[in-house]
Amino acid sequence: MKVLVIGANGQIGKHLVRLLQDSDEHTVKAMVRKKEQIDTMKNIGVDAVLGNLEGSVEEIAEAAKGSDAVIFTAGSGASTGPDKTLLIDLDGAVKSMEAAEKAGADRFVIVSAFQSHNRESWEDSPIRPYMVAKHYADKILETSSLNYTIVRPGGLLNEPGTDKVSIAENLERGSIPREDVAKVIVASLNEESTYRKGFDLMSGETSVADAVKKI
Amino acid sequence: MKVLVIGANGQIGKHLVRLLQDSDEHTVKAMVRKKEQIDTMKNIGVDAVLGNLEGSVEEIAEAAKGSDAVIFTAGSGASTGPDKTLLIDLDGAVKSMEAAEKAGADRFVIVSAFQSHNRESWEDSPIRPYMVAKHYADKILETSSLNYTIVRPGGLLNEPGTDKVSIAENLERGSIPREDVAKVIVASLNEESTYRKGFDLMSGETSVADAVKKI
Repeated sequence: MKVLVIGANGQIGKHLVRLLQDSDEHTVKAMVRKKEQIDTMKNIGVDAVLGNLEGSVEEIAEAAKGSDAVIFTAGSGASTGPDKTLLIDLDGAVKSMEAAEKAGADRFVIVSAFQSHNRESWEDSPIRPYMVAKHYADKILETSSLNYTIVRPGGLLNEPGTDKVSIAENLERGSIPREDVAKVIVASLNEESTYRKGFDLMSGETSVADAVKKI
Repeated sequence: MKVLVIGANGQIGKHLVRLLQDSDEHTVKAMVRKKEQIDTMKNIGVDAVLGNLEGSVEEIAEAAKGSDAVIFTAGSGASTGPDKTLLIDLDGAVKSMEAAEKAGADRFVIVSAFQSHNRESWEDSPIRPYMVAKHYADKILETSSLNYTIVRPGGLLNEPGTDKVSIAENLERGSIPREDVAKVIVASLNEESTYRKGFDLMSGETSVADAVKKI
């Protein structure tokens, strides 16, 4: 698959770009926000394109042109306020969906948040506004025409991946290395058992290859 | 119709309560956030119930029990931040929809914002995060099972209503007294031409009764 990674310069995004670059099945194009990030990508041999999630759907669709799949792993980040949460995590995500539809990139994988589908679980959360944004981005994706997968990882770690994960509709709160999240996403791209589904994701006992097949 | 007004203590809400109370066709129940607001409503002879949009769907459904219609005119207000925009204008609105479905109140009218359906129109707006929240609340309503009407008024004024309005899918920016917005909503409740539709609303040349019939 030809894959556009939106948020390619982010922490999960960088793992995704490397894994897709090393893959025999896929090619990768990185969508990044800043000109200097284009150069960084090109220096490691990765095709890159500018795209702004606060811009128009047309601009993102232009970036997605020629892709079979879009992976959305952008986020407004912890240091910005909830205004950016609305503009990036919600509207930016949905604009990316509309752009994928426009560009004919039918496969769409979104990095969501643990238990985003289950409002009761974040009623008392300090990041409740963020969870609201993720919840509705996922909801809109579910009503879209796209062949989606919604990945809801637990607490994200920077340590190296173990390739051992746990995947289910609902899991207990836990954590997972970002590298393993990226591995699950890449393994999901062509895996029919992940199509039109969402799942919680943690470190666990099963290899990534087996875990995505058993969803 | 038995009508629950969510946001009954707000500026449009107060007009709605009075108009519904004066109506021969409808009865009104006011959902308010504070206990003292219950007393205020009861003092003017209006049935009132406590309900918190940051609470559970079940709590709101309990308030909606026995109603045929729900009018959502709550808002986080200009003095709160975008975190409340996410919690009230988006999640609170959608929880009210889910509550209406649960309670069997099939008719749902939401007070939205001018051009909320048209992302291009608010790309450079200073209230863009608010518009994002309203946009997605409306989107979710459109995919719900409810018989909805989405009312998108222009700049809201406190002067008395004129009963003369303009209604269309897309209007030029303008303004309208809150009292006229309330009149349009009450006139829409039983008006089939407004079912499963959204429209911009401004002061204009046509009487409210005629304008809602011609949508």
